[in-house]
Amino acid sequence: MLRAGPSQEEIRRHNLGTLLRHVHLGGPMSRAELTHLMGLNRSTIMALTADLTAAGLVREELPRDTGKAGRPSLVVLPETHRVYVLAFDVGVDRLAAARIGLGGVILDRREAERRRGPFDLGQVVTTLAGFARQMLRGVRADAVCVGAAVAFCGAVRKSDGVVRIGPNVGAEEVPLGEELSKRLSLGLPVVVGNDANLGALAEHARGAGVGCRDLVYLHGDVGIGGGIVVNGQLLSGADGYGGEVGHMVLNPGGRPCGCGSRGCFEAEVGERALLEYAGRQGGAAGRDGIRAIVTAAELGDAAAKEALRRVGHWLGLGVANLVNVLNPEMVIFGGMLRDIYLGAAAQVRSTLNTTALRATREGLRLRTAALGDDATLMGAAELAFADVLADPLEALSRAAM
Amino acid sequence: MLRAGPSQEEIRRHNLGTLLRHVHLGGPMSRAELTHLMGLNRSTIMALTADLTAAGLVREELPRDTGKAGRPSLVVLPETHRVYVLAFDVGVDRLAAARIGLGGVILDRREAERRRGPFDLGQVVTTLAGFARQMLRGVRADAVCVGAAVAFCGAVRKSDGVVRIGPNVGAEEVPLGEELSKRLSLGLPVVVGNDANLGALAEHARGAGVGCRDLVYLHGDVGIGGGIVVNGQLLSGADGYGGEVGHMVLNPGGRPCGCGSRGCFEAEVGERALLEYAGRQGGAAGRDGIRAIVTAAELGDAAAKEALRRVGHWLGLGVANLVNVLNPEMVIFGGMLRDIYLGAAAQVRSTLNTTALRATREGLRLRTAALGDDATLMGAAELAFADVLADPLEALSRAAM
Repeated sequence: MLRAGPSQEEIRRHNLGTLLRHVHLGGPMSRAELTHLMGLNRSTIMALTADLTAAGLVREELPRDTGKAGRPSLVVLPETHRVYVLAFDVGVDRLAAARIGLGGVILDRREAERRRGPFDLGQVVTTLAGFARQMLRGVRADAVCVGAAVAFCGAVRKSDGVVRIGPNVGAEEVPLGEELSKRLSLGLPVVVGNDANLGALAEHARGAGVGCRDLVYLHGDVGIGGGIVVNGQLLSGADGYGGEVGHMVLNPGGRPCGCGSRGCFEAEVGERALLEYAGRQGGAAGRDGIRAIVTAAELGDAAAKEALRRVGHWLGLGVANLVNVLNPEMVIFGGMLRDIYLGAAAQVRSTLNTTALRATREGLRLRTAALGDDATLMGAAELAFADVLADPLEALSRAAM
Repeated sequence: MLRAGPSQEEIRRHNLGTLLRHVHLGGPMSRAELTHLMGLNRSTIMALTADLTAAGLVREELPRDTGKAGRPSLVVLPETHRVYVLAFDVGVDRLAAARIGLGGVILDRREAERRRGPFDLGQVVTTLAGFARQMLRGVRADAVCVGAAVAFCGAVRKSDGVVRIGPNVGAEEVPLGEELSKRLSLGLPVVVGNDANLGALAEHARGAGVGCRDLVYLHGDVGIGGGIVVNGQLLSGADGYGGEVGHMVLNPGGRPCGCGSRGCFEAEVGERALLEYAGRQGGAAGRDGIRAIVTAAELGDAAAKEALRRVGHWLGLGVANLVNVLNPEMVIFGGMLRDIYLGAAAQVRSTLNTTALRATREGLRLRTAALGDDATLMGAAELAFADVLADPLEALSRAAM
């Protein structure tokens, strides 16, 4: 609600955040472009830029190469190497961490395999905190960590950020953020989000979905998670569990699912179904197993082709249901689903066309994650940058304490 | 975006709209309550109330009975009999119209049966415009019609408000709003919305869903439509077709659906399935047919009970899928689904509990439409009031021209 006069100070903070978000997401841009984008006058943009420069959040310099004749104008760009966040990703088969600078640049990155089996919080936290320590060693003396966040392959409760359940990694009621924050000892809270939700956030902010107001991101990682963007905002649902599309039932009485039900999206389309249909249950699982089947199908292997066709049918049906319910502009396939979609695109399209209403699908675009395997990690970084983008100077002074 | 200073005039317009919305949705309230709700000081509230009073949008009077001792303070209330909209509803079996006053009060109402069969735009428009003429006859000389809207049982394209498709009434590419506006000759555009979307809007604004940020409204009318509210806003989707849940496939290879697919939510749960399962295909259809089955089941009729159990199972599965995807706080059953849900609630709950994730369903409430059969009509009224609530004085002066 607009009060009878937001104060000059409130307006300034808001505008500082907006300007910083523009260069964080859009990259280097001239003051003239910012003046145009923000609808403010030149002297205001100059003052805002001066404030952010003084705080060390942006700097101005000559552009690399404008391709135009004449004297180029200065561009404002984010202080990528000075202001950064720590982003983590806990997937079924991997633990990843990155130091990501303002502007969304991966400055440093670590990754380890995760052995499948019961969830060991201590071991996960030790690995991730170890990665963080290694990455913080070489950091410039004036660099500031402004946030930390984890993408987790399970449902995360909104009210307290606790992992409610992650059936594919055997996790339940795990205070991951709190434990990791303690172990990092940076005086920063660690925010936790569902990996597919964060993948959606990242693809919307700087991936395949830039400019889309309504999209669905589907993330395959043994199970299937979803992130739904409605009118430019991530759908969280009442308790934070919005987008658990993996447990939408597509085939009643079908394949048993880890959740206790049958015929769920992830039971019919996930890794296990594909390996079994291809007769490769005993072989490589995970990403390698999926890729081997897609490659075999390309080389003409009949069992692999048939397995992809079957899984592609259910994937098309799941997408059709989401398209009818949500009428998104785009559906993005990430994680393992990227490979499965690429190997089964014709079947997916065919089932989609016979199942979704013409009205809901006629404007639809199907895409793979532009950020590839880093979508979830980049989404965690966006979550970690949220405070500094909301109120840059305040967040920075808190972080620098 | 906050510009460097929204003008005093912009702030005043915004605040006028907000105050009017409070009394429109919340009913009579004192200036003290408005001061508290809007976070403004008393003199600003007094000035805003004076402006709205001068325009004839609200008035102040002593409350009916406060139940408290001492001198009661004046309450601000909407000028229900002076400021109204025309709301229309085109369902499969009925055409309805109402004159609805500010504050959401039905001042007058007309209804006619609609014969099933191909869509006859001329006949629909003639009937609705005839209702409007009848209702406008007895209106006070100083009354102002500030808007008009139709709830339609089909998909409505966002870009131009044209009915894209209404399979259950045989409609396709119908310029209903434009034609009705011409025939009404009130110099007002007629906005068109999907009936279930508008039912969701009404139940959220003044029905079972007041105070819920995330809800799903399911509307049964031969077919099944849905309206989804996310974070307090109606989900429209990229082209306006969000919420077409009736064509989510629940039972692949199941009952044929009017859309050309099989096993859709509305094919498994709609009127036709229930009548057939109960062995009553030749008997009464529509609302009466459904109610007869529910009554028969209550009286112990085995076929009716079994029919409700079967349909209740699919209804539970459809709800479970929506709950997993959207994690709403509440699901509301309206139209014919109200009766079906009341007759099959135990089965619906049972299937929901075995299918939806515990996390997504543990906070969920299931409710019937508090506005009953008027939910869609009331939703059309909310759509028609949108302009006057956004900028009261401007919209009023346009309407009074």
